[in-house]
Amino acid sequence: MDSLTLPTPQDVIDAHARIRDLIVETPVMTSAVMDTHCNAQLFFKCEQLQKTGSFKFRGASHAVSWLPDDCPGVATHSSGNHGAALALAAHLRGISAEVVMPQNAIQAKIDAVGTYQGQVHFCEPTQRAREAGLAHWVDQGRVAIPPYEHPHIIAGQGTAAWELMHQVTDLDVIVSPIGGGGLISGTALATRALNHPKRPRVIGVEPKGADDTYRSLAQGARVDDHQPDTMADGLRALVGEMNLSLIEAHVESVLCVTEDQILEAMQWLWRDLKQVIEPSGAVALAGLMAHPEIFKGQRVGVILSGGNMNLPNPLVS
Amino acid sequence: MDSLTLPTPQDVIDAHARIRDLIVETPVMTSAVMDTHCNAQLFFKCEQLQKTGSFKFRGASHAVSWLPDDCPGVATHSSGNHGAALALAAHLRGISAEVVMPQNAIQAKIDAVGTYQGQVHFCEPTQRAREAGLAHWVDQGRVAIPPYEHPHIIAGQGTAAWELMHQVTDLDVIVSPIGGGGLISGTALATRALNHPKRPRVIGVEPKGADDTYRSLAQGARVDDHQPDTMADGLRALVGEMNLSLIEAHVESVLCVTEDQILEAMQWLWRDLKQVIEPSGAVALAGLMAHPEIFKGQRVGVILSGGNMNLPNPLVS
Repeated sequence: MDSLTLPTPQDVIDAHARIRDLIVETPVMTSAVMDTHCNAQLFFKCEQLQKTGSFKFRGASHAVSWLPDDCPGVATHSSGNHGAALALAAHLRGISAEVVMPQNAIQAKIDAVGTYQGQVHFCEPTQRAREAGLAHWVDQGRVAIPPYEHPHIIAGQGTAAWELMHQVTDLDVIVSPIGGGGLISGTALATRALNHPKRPRVIGVEPKGADDTYRSLAQGARVDDHQPDTMADGLRALVGEMNLSLIEAHVESVLCVTEDQILEAMQWLWRDLKQVIEPSGAVALAGLMAHPEIFKGQRVGVILSGGNMNLPNPLVS
Repeated sequence: MDSLTLPTPQDVIDAHARIRDLIVETPVMTSAVMDTHCNAQLFFKCEQLQKTGSFKFRGASHAVSWLPDDCPGVATHSSGNHGAALALAAHLRGISAEVVMPQNAIQAKIDAVGTYQGQVHFCEPTQRAREAGLAHWVDQGRVAIPPYEHPHIIAGQGTAAWELMHQVTDLDVIVSPIGGGGLISGTALATRALNHPKRPRVIGVEPKGADDTYRSLAQGARVDDHQPDTMADGLRALVGEMNLSLIEAHVESVLCVTEDQILEAMQWLWRDLKQVIEPSGAVALAGLMAHPEIFKGQRVGVILSGGNMNLPNPLVS
């Protein structure tokens, strides 16, 4: 894959046409209580209700849709949601999936890969070991499907915002979390695909403990000192080069949030929306709540990116 | 209110017409993973997404809709969801609400009454103290709105099943939890209101630690030795006489579940549906999972009655 082949806004529209019968058109939730609290009109795009419990199924099923029928299998390395999403997307086409996972991946996400008939292969929790594990399967003839730095993945992830803009018109802004950057770069392309005089702006949010995109934009080049430390396990990846280019071109700003702000946003979502949202999935709302001045009085799309996590005992409060 | 004036199936249809613009038509969720696990086709009616987080808003807003414009205020005693539901229903009509709550009510439910502008008045956690507290407000001219033994309340609660049967056709059976019996008796009436040759059967589920309805049906009269002991705080009430009559006439059977079974059902709903469901709200699914032989291969409506609880720390698993 030539890393210079950036996906285009039209690619998001095309991706949606390819996968619309495979994915769930996830609902948009609202809450009068949260609107009052946040002083804005919030529209929550519920990707925790996507197949496999996260938006990752969009990109994975899009990438898989381009494979030939005689594909000998797919492989990836993933600490989480991309692995489960790829496993199901491949399984639905009768294709096997090998998922290289670090030994310290959370149990709920390891279990999910198996639920969707993927094969888990553990490795040491280092980038080098993950890449070596994947290389082994590529040597065996499997097609590597990366988690975020890939035009098909980015275009697929953009379908969440594409749906959202058709479910809710006249949004002022869409807020998305940033990990490797697949979701936000797809989101930015989706807004550019809209044939409407007023396009929503796009704002990204990162944990302060994984602020590689924020720092990369500030210094004008991707950082190389990335040592993530955040509960948001889905946002620990280093932003992709392709993703960073799209963010630089199309995203208004990147906000950073503390661990306490992430936790508070999660608690709002659990208590008020009654939705089990994983830490990464609450980061967009955390950004909005941490910077109310940016969003005051606006119509804001907030992407809840997923809901997979080791659950607490519901009875211990 | 004459306790012999039982509500009719037509009353559910009429109630729906009166309140449809006030309530949320809650979504129906499905899960391929849970269908496989339970060997049946499950349709979850999501009352945790109703206003105030439980089905109780249906009955409360229906009862309030019958009050005159110059009503001097309403009052009730409640350990939970009915209090918050009545507070909001009254507030939306500009009517004040006095809610007598036992001191040991859970904090989340106390807070909710205030959120919806109701006035909380604490009392000792005994039936006598609750009734005395309510009597005080009735003496002050407030209209008492009981939580379940009232034709308007029962007809209003039945609108959940009424909606469900229009959202999902050809259900074989609807499963509902039983506390005071408002939801299940309304549900039974709703199925009788359906103009269709095949009506869903109705099955109720109780915690073993609050099996007053099960025992009342077995002995042919309401029990008087009711000492509830269950985590399902919404199901601790003694079944109403009016409710018991309707259950006897229209409900196929009542199943009982253990505390462990309730907890397991909750965990399935949190993990797989990504829905925060309170213990009482998971009891219908617990009954289905405990008695798979009754439901095998059938199309089953499962009422998730609410999602209000003291939440655990999301990060401690």
